[in-house]
Amino acid sequence: MQVLSVAVAGASGYAGGEILRLLIGHPEVTIGAVTAASSAGDPLARHHPHLTPLADRVLQPTNAETLAEHDVVFLALPHGASAELAAQLPDDVTVIDCGADFRLVDSRAWEEFYGSAHAGTWAYGMPELVVEGGAKQRTQLFGASHIAVPGCYPTASSLALAPALAAGLATGDVVIVAASGTSGAGKSLKPHLLAAEAMGSMSPYGVGGVHRHTPEIEQNLSRAGGAPVTVSFTPTLAPMPRGILATCSAKVAPGTTTSQVRAAYAEAYDAEAFVQLLPEGVWPTTAAVIGSNNVQVQLAVDERVGRVVVVTAIDNLTKGTGGGAVQCLNLARGFDEGVGLPTTGLAP
Amino acid sequence: MQVLSVAVAGASGYAGGEILRLLIGHPEVTIGAVTAASSAGDPLARHHPHLTPLADRVLQPTNAETLAEHDVVFLALPHGASAELAAQLPDDVTVIDCGADFRLVDSRAWEEFYGSAHAGTWAYGMPELVVEGGAKQRTQLFGASHIAVPGCYPTASSLALAPALAAGLATGDVVIVAASGTSGAGKSLKPHLLAAEAMGSMSPYGVGGVHRHTPEIEQNLSRAGGAPVTVSFTPTLAPMPRGILATCSAKVAPGTTTSQVRAAYAEAYDAEAFVQLLPEGVWPTTAAVIGSNNVQVQLAVDERVGRVVVVTAIDNLTKGTGGGAVQCLNLARGFDEGVGLPTTGLAP
Amino acid sequence: MQVLSVAVAGASGYAGGEILRLLIGHPEVTIGAVTAASSAGDPLARHHPHLTPLADRVLQPTNAETLAEHDVVFLALPHGASAELAAQLPDDVTVIDCGADFRLVDSRAWEEFYGSAHAGTWAYGMPELVVEGGAKQRTQLFGASHIAVPGCYPTASSLALAPALAAGLATGDVVIVAASGTSGAGKSLKPHLLAAEAMGSMSPYGVGGVHRHTPEIEQNLSRAGGAPVTVSFTPTLAPMPRGILATCSAKVAPGTTTSQVRAAYAEAYDAEAFVQLLPEGVWPTTAAVIGSNNVQVQLAVDERVGRVVVVTAIDNLTKGTGGGAVQCLNLARGFDEGVGLPTTGLAP
Amino acid sequence: MQVLSVAVAGASGYAGGEILRLLIGHPEVTIGAVTAASSAGDPLARHHPHLTPLADRVLQPTNAETLAEHDVVFLALPHGASAELAAQLPDDVTVIDCGADFRLVDSRAWEEFYGSAHAGTWAYGMPELVVEGGAKQRTQLFGASHIAVPGCYPTASSLALAPALAAGLATGDVVIVAASGTSGAGKSLKPHLLAAEAMGSMSPYGVGGVHRHTPEIEQNLSRAGGAPVTVSFTPTLAPMPRGILATCSAKVAPGTTTSQVRAAYAEAYDAEAFVQLLPEGVWPTTAAVIGSNNVQVQLAVDERVGRVVVVTAIDNLTKGTGGGAVQCLNLARGFDEGVGLPTTGLAP
Repeated sequence: MQVLSVAVAGASGYAGGEILRLLIGHPEVTIGAVTAASSAGDPLARHHPHLTPLADRVLQPTNAETLAEHDVVFLALPHGASAELAAQLPDDVTVIDCGADFRLVDSRAWEEFYGSAHAGTWAYGMPELVVEGGAKQRTQLFGASHIAVPGCYPTASSLALAPALAAGLATGDVVIVAASGTSGAGKSLKPHLLAAEAMGSMSPYGVGGVHRHTPEIEQNLSRAGGAPVTVSFTPTLAPMPRGILATCSAKVAPGTTTSQVRAAYAEAYDAEAFVQLLPEGVWPTTAAVIGSNNVQVQLAVDERVGRVVVVTAIDNLTKGTGGGAVQCLNLARGFDEGVGLPTTGLAP
Repeated sequence: MQVLSVAVAGASGYAGGEILRLLIGHPEVTIGAVTAASSAGDPLARHHPHLTPLADRVLQPTNAETLAEHDVVFLALPHGASAELAAQLPDDVTVIDCGADFRLVDSRAWEEFYGSAHAGTWAYGMPELVVEGGAKQRTQLFGASHIAVPGCYPTASSLALAPALAAGLATGDVVIVAASGTSGAGKSLKPHLLAAEAMGSMSPYGVGGVHRHTPEIEQNLSRAGGAPVTVSFTPTLAPMPRGILATCSAKVAPGTTTSQVRAAYAEAYDAEAFVQLLPEGVWPTTAAVIGSNNVQVQLAVDERVGRVVVVTAIDNLTKGTGGGAVQCLNLARGFDEGVGLPTTGLAP
Repeated sequence: MQVLSVAVAGASGYAGGEILRLLIGHPEVTIGAVTAASSAGDPLARHHPHLTPLADRVLQPTNAETLAEHDVVFLALPHGASAELAAQLPDDVTVIDCGADFRLVDSRAWEEFYGSAHAGTWAYGMPELVVEGGAKQRTQLFGASHIAVPGCYPTASSLALAPALAAGLATGDVVIVAASGTSGAGKSLKPHLLAAEAMGSMSPYGVGGVHRHTPEIEQNLSRAGGAPVTVSFTPTLAPMPRGILATCSAKVAPGTTTSQVRAAYAEAYDAEAFVQLLPEGVWPTTAAVIGSNNVQVQLAVDERVGRVVVVTAIDNLTKGTGGGAVQCLNLARGFDEGVGLPTTGLAP
Repeated sequence: MQVLSVAVAGASGYAGGEILRLLIGHPEVTIGAVTAASSAGDPLARHHPHLTPLADRVLQPTNAETLAEHDVVFLALPHGASAELAAQLPDDVTVIDCGADFRLVDSRAWEEFYGSAHAGTWAYGMPELVVEGGAKQRTQLFGASHIAVPGCYPTASSLALAPALAAGLATGDVVIVAASGTSGAGKSLKPHLLAAEAMGSMSPYGVGGVHRHTPEIEQNLSRAGGAPVTVSFTPTLAPMPRGILATCSAKVAPGTTTSQVRAAYAEAYDAEAFVQLLPEGVWPTTAAVIGSNNVQVQLAVDERVGRVVVVTAIDNLTKGTGGGAVQCLNLARGFDEGVGLPTTGLAP
């Protein structure tokens, strides 16, 4: 198979850096242009000193001309910036967008949560998502030319609850509380992201339904359950660089047992390379998935309160962003789905 | 007022160390015996190098004889160890227990969650807890001779939801996800508590209703609401030494607004020295309360899902253990409730 | 004794916040104006949510008019900003400067390391510094009207080596490698101070003699030894909010033993309230001094290489800045030296 | 080339886990027996939940019988345990020992620092070490059957100073202060390694020449310089899971300049795949090398004090242990030296 030429737009940020980290180890691609906005002209090492093999690459300006001559373009841009750029790229370029712009189907939901005109809807890049009837979202990604990579919180949350909803075992009243490492907030220079502030501290944000990832989670869970689902979603910031731990729960029908739910998850995920339903009694830790494309899953039905609690752990930058994006590349261009994607984490 | 003689049993652990840290600055007490089990004979500095003024104190063995000649005895012992020791102390000693042994009213709940015979029920040391009818738990603590200090998670969780339940604004289906610093797990030498394992990682434990703090939270919230409340409670371990962030939610009656709920919390807490309902738009962080006896509170009603979300931050060792214990001392012995208790945190 | 009115200029930063944290607990002062530059008009809680008793204070603009009507003014300003402001304050105001402007005696050293005109030299606020002949720097601080508070690295480094030099046991070739928590870099919004970058990482800066604290350390050690001393000083940034661990060594005369050096340190520090020469075999940890004004010290002579190694631990914001500043206030205005200054750290 | 069968003894610890992490991605080997002492019988996932591809492997007991039928055996055992086991393995097994047992040439140095009989000396596995005359240690590793993998501190320290000594630019009086992540202390359950103790804290240990890595560093630097070198070495524990930052300095001959020294390092390391002399003005960070086999190097001559300061950053578990071990495997068995060894770090 021919090696593909790949460009990364927005390469100075954490998402762009993570895509590059994975592409360095991907045998089917060569890394072409790496671009940035205000950092154009800098050596890549100034922004990503860990990417030693690319240390001397110079960031080019982000524009259609620079990006056009590649087989695949990854967009790791601020929300709202992808549409205009994507429209200028040739039709035969595979475009994989890590922003939120093309994730939502419902224009009103977009406008309500993002406050701007909806750009449209691309193939949604969450292969393992169980959708109504038991199929997987993967089928929409084979050969797709334009793909919207899911958000990090929606990845951890949707994979946590979709099988229970698809199997009719969860009945709604979804509550999700997720803790993310601070790289999830990006490289923006905000006081609360300073190390002296964030180390040793937990804090919530976007409480009360206002977080922008809420409609994406609801869209996924509604597709899984075949009926509208609303979600109480509270993200929190944890004192770690990477990782998301999502604690997700939903009401279950009376009499539902842990083993029933477990069976549904085994059916959904046993064939998945990147989703591990852990042995009974073992719970996910973010440490175990750092740097990998894995999703660790464990669950229990709390019969006293009639809820199933499902906990997932992912690396927000790998499975939650860059790894998810490379997985989409593999599906879109016909490679083995796991090429270039670590299933081994970096611990301790 | 006469200065009291105070002993601390279990002084080598984190709870004991925190009680001592606060007692050093308490003007109405002198610190008498500091005792331990296997560490008896050690200088205190070996276990608590931060307690410089007590560096040369030697840990005595924990027994009734050593403790008896004090006005007040704090017990910071493993769960299940307090009853036998307390029974041997003279009647005029004020006993303040930081263990779980005397917190629960319902013997069956104790036996279910702790698997041993129930020791009994002491005055419950959570002064700010709103109980049915709008009174505060404080009234039971004036002059009390035996007090059970609440658990750290129950403190953060109960103060988060009691006002909404007491005001009839929350109607149940309580879901609590709380993140604690690793000192909450004590000084026990377990592999998952090693720094190399815990730094940079989040993990859940006691999922599915089995955590021992669950019945204590339910007891408090049931008293607040005047009817039985069950709780889905998931504690998680966060990579920080101290602090608890509790994200708590409950169903609300249709039409309930944030400002209605806010008014109920203002009524409950505006006169409290240690509970701060933060200005609108400002959310708690554990960093802001470290080392203080404060509880930061913020809330929002998510009308889309019909839930109120209340987030609290405490220091698990201060308000959640040692500070709560000293506050009980103050109430029991007639001091000003805030003596010796910092309202200023240590940040950054 | 009359209560003093105290103002803090630069109250939005870490140094200003730490001074306020300590002044809240200082019985001899009332806190007057708290001022800032670009943050003027903000409630203090926005910048220091841990300072609950001052939550509603509003930051005033930093200018002489606002500051003048106080007995004492603390300046916690960027280096270079103190001189102009100090000149505008009335003569009877005690001015305590946490910046570097007035620390150095040698104008050429200032100009070489700071690149601007030297502002002058104020009384140097390091009471425990042993100077030639065995006296302490403290004597220059009684009743002083203008005091330059030492830098955090110079505090940890100078107190580490001064007794050995003053006693003639150390003979020079000083090498200091110090690790500081990231609050030492201030609240400036720089990429390498983001939590995602700094957590889990150590890095050096100012290598090769170029760090601005070098001439201050050399000045102190030269005074201690009575002859010019040069220093190889390498500061590093450690993944913790607070604390400095300074590993300092110097050549010793052949035959010098650990117990000889230990005796010199005991003589220098046994009467000091804030400097603890630890028992043999116990080494400093920054955790033990966090939030306190303490300096932990331990030492060993490595006879194989002919060097004495002295390790000190301080809290860079307390003893290293705000605590040192309050200690200067106490000496300048005739209070007991330790008033308002914790000797108990916050751990774990 | 034929795929080799490889066993790892001591697979439950951090060194064993890291070797396995790298072997999973090594195309020339299959992983055979993974063994442990007290943990034999456990699934590997209980000890290394990040090694997903080996999750179901069961730890076998560590003994010669289990290990014998492999082409290569890695020993990741406590110091002192390798000799007896190695003696029982067949002659045609390549044995690569991560312990200290076979690193030292001088029996007296071993006995002084380890207090037991010296086991012997194997080929020393630090390929990039410059030895007298300008050769590299690599030449001793081609086809070696028994290799002693260097310690983590000696790796960071020796590669820092060897080129300056070999070039005659450094003249001695070596002072090394190194900070290590807590995984360097292993998985032993000691109170000071608990997360609540170690997070947010720096502490020294083995001060005054007594650290066991000192003679290994001296052996390497003496070989580089061609004359005996003694070293003042102070290791410190930093609040991070992985990484070593070594700040190393030595006296230089008068007039020696940074660019002279830089030229010597360029000559030593420009052809090395895993050692990066960073561009001028850029300093190493441990974050940049985490998970990689890289050594970042930067240096400056401080002409004021006549010292060269060289700072290196490595991952103590990768280049400092497991990666170094796999690099030795590659050299011993004729693979490309870099096979299976990441040159890309995991950041942020």
